Amino acid sequence: MHTLSELLEALQVFAAENPFPGQPAELYQPCDYMLTLGGKRLRPAILLMGYEIYRDDVEKALPAAWAVELFHNFTLMHDDIMDAAPLRRGQATVHTRWNTTTAILSGDVMLIRAYQMLHATGQTDRLPALLQTFNQVATEVCEGQQMDVNFETRADVSIPEYIKMIELKTAVLLGGALKMGAICAQAPDTDAEHLYHFGRLAGIAFQIQDDLLDTYGDPAKFGKQVGGDILQNKKTLLVLKTLETAPEADCNELLSWMQTGAEQGDEKVEAVRAIFNRNNIPQLIALEKEKYQDEAFQHLASIQAPDDRKSVLRKMIEDLLERER
Amino acid sequence: MHTLSELLEALQVFAAENPFPGQPAELYQPCDYMLTLGGKRLRPAILLMGYEIYRDDVEKALPAAWAVELFHNFTLMHDDIMDAAPLRRGQATVHTRWNTTTAILSGDVMLIRAYQMLHATGQTDRLPALLQTFNQVATEVCEGQQMDVNFETRADVSIPEYIKMIELKTAVLLGGALKMGAICAQAPDTDAEHLYHFGRLAGIAFQIQDDLLDTYGDPAKFGKQVGGDILQNKKTLLVLKTLETAPEADCNELLSWMQTGAEQGDEKVEAVRAIFNRNNIPQLIALEKEKYQDEAFQHLASIQAPDDRKSVLRKMIEDLLERER
Repeated sequence: MHTLSELLEALQVFAAENPFPGQPAELYQPCDYMLTLGGKRLRPAILLMGYEIYRDDVEKALPAAWAVELFHNFTLMHDDIMDAAPLRRGQATVHTRWNTTTAILSGDVMLIRAYQMLHATGQTDRLPALLQTFNQVATEVCEGQQMDVNFETRADVSIPEYIKMIELKTAVLLGGALKMGAICAQAPDTDAEHLYHFGRLAGIAFQIQDDLLDTYGDPAKFGKQVGGDILQNKKTLLVLKTLETAPEADCNELLSWMQTGAEQGDEKVEAVRAIFNRNNIPQLIALEKEKYQDEAFQHLASIQAPDDRKSVLRKMIEDLLERER
Repeated sequence: MHTLSELLEALQVFAAENPFPGQPAELYQPCDYMLTLGGKRLRPAILLMGYEIYRDDVEKALPAAWAVELFHNFTLMHDDIMDAAPLRRGQATVHTRWNTTTAILSGDVMLIRAYQMLHATGQTDRLPALLQTFNQVATEVCEGQQMDVNFETRADVSIPEYIKMIELKTAVLLGGALKMGAICAQAPDTDAEHLYHFGRLAGIAFQIQDDLLDTYGDPAKFGKQVGGDILQNKKTLLVLKTLETAPEADCNELLSWMQTGAEQGDEKVEAVRAIFNRNNIPQLIALEKEKYQDEAFQHLASIQAPDDRKSVLRKMIEDLLERER
């Protein structure tokens, strides 16, 4: 078994040995650029960890792992167009640095490249299951993005709908990555399902935590501007929980702050945070997160494999979900 | 074996029995809309014809055929954004009727749906070859589209480059469809390759013919406005052949017409057509078309199957390539 950093190193080597074609440069350079923006490679790494629960020859799972990373980067390239986002990880987005045509077409070819990597796994007997899982997850990610787009212009989003959106948009890809690792390793089907749900539920918990950290995180540790969601009037879980549970006066105050722009800055962030605080919203959201997290780890416990084979995966997810402790 | 119209009917039934999911409606309605705009279903039909050279149970090839049609419609949806095209087949394009976000995301999910159809072929032993061929062709179509985009701002496009562009952008999909039909039918590999080249070369001939018909077609038979390429200053094969073979004065006259807008209308079309005519461009282009067409039919002749098994396919491609006779 390998540590996280050893797995990341193996992914780096695999990516370097399997570059995009050189031509047409206008098509492939934006793909290379996107991949160098320095994501955490979380998704391919957990696929490899899922594989290593069962087998030691982890190099056999590298193409499937890289397929997941390429898919993730394809979604980022297209989502950035839809969100009109100028920056990603502090660098110009592809549609900003080049143009929308480039970001569409380079994203398309990156998605197809992901399927080339699935083919490159070279495991004929497992390819149907791999392809089915990947297709299912990829479809759901598009559906989640569509729900997110729809929510921007809806005033009546419920908490279950919001959870469903984050589940589809981001969590199922973690579950799918783990399941694909299990499929590559020919793990029992019941284990593959438990791994899928472990990743899916941990992914939901992670997104809930992300909403919480955006408003309550330690600025020194949180990668983005704390309070960013408040300034952008995002309908996060904190907002939805307030609208569901707080007295009418607080709801109205929150809604009126959400009509204002970002120029009030600190005053706006403080006022909205005060509304959340006096209604115990952070505590309620933390409970929500724990619910999903607990359910996730029950699935991990149900897997028919020795505990020490699950240790690298367990530690990584624990670290991700407890980064503020 | 079945006639073209029987195959189209089978495709229609298959599509109706395999609809997109209902929700989110904002994601899937544009996909349904795109498919109802009434394309000729040429690509899936030839996949089925390739299959029927070898086997009679053509229903087994329907999912792969539909995958090719979904892929084609995905490319149209995204290309229409890139070309800022307001209309397709006389109806509003998806990005016009909805918006760019919708056209990107619905196109993405349609591409993924194509891969779901590949999985639905349910032929484990043939899936790797099917996936490989589909991936290869899909990648090349993106590369061809990128070349086409690049050519818009280049003044020095050569004829071989132009042929390469139409080969990648449109012809390889015909070749790939035929090869996929052969793979589904477990045809010999050499036959699958001959079918691929038959489709690819016929596709190039067809595109060359399309350039010719845009300027010289019978307005009653040609679906689009005759002279449209001239009015839009497109660098078609007619233009490139003129620039390669005509005297400098004619080249300069052509180039100066290509600096003008569409408002000159008939006068511009007549003047440019006269330049082409006095340099025998239509005859030269027709020869170019015949070269690819002849090579295509040599590949069809090389296939190890009785002539009557090839007759439906041969007739359809002959009809497509001789529609002005």
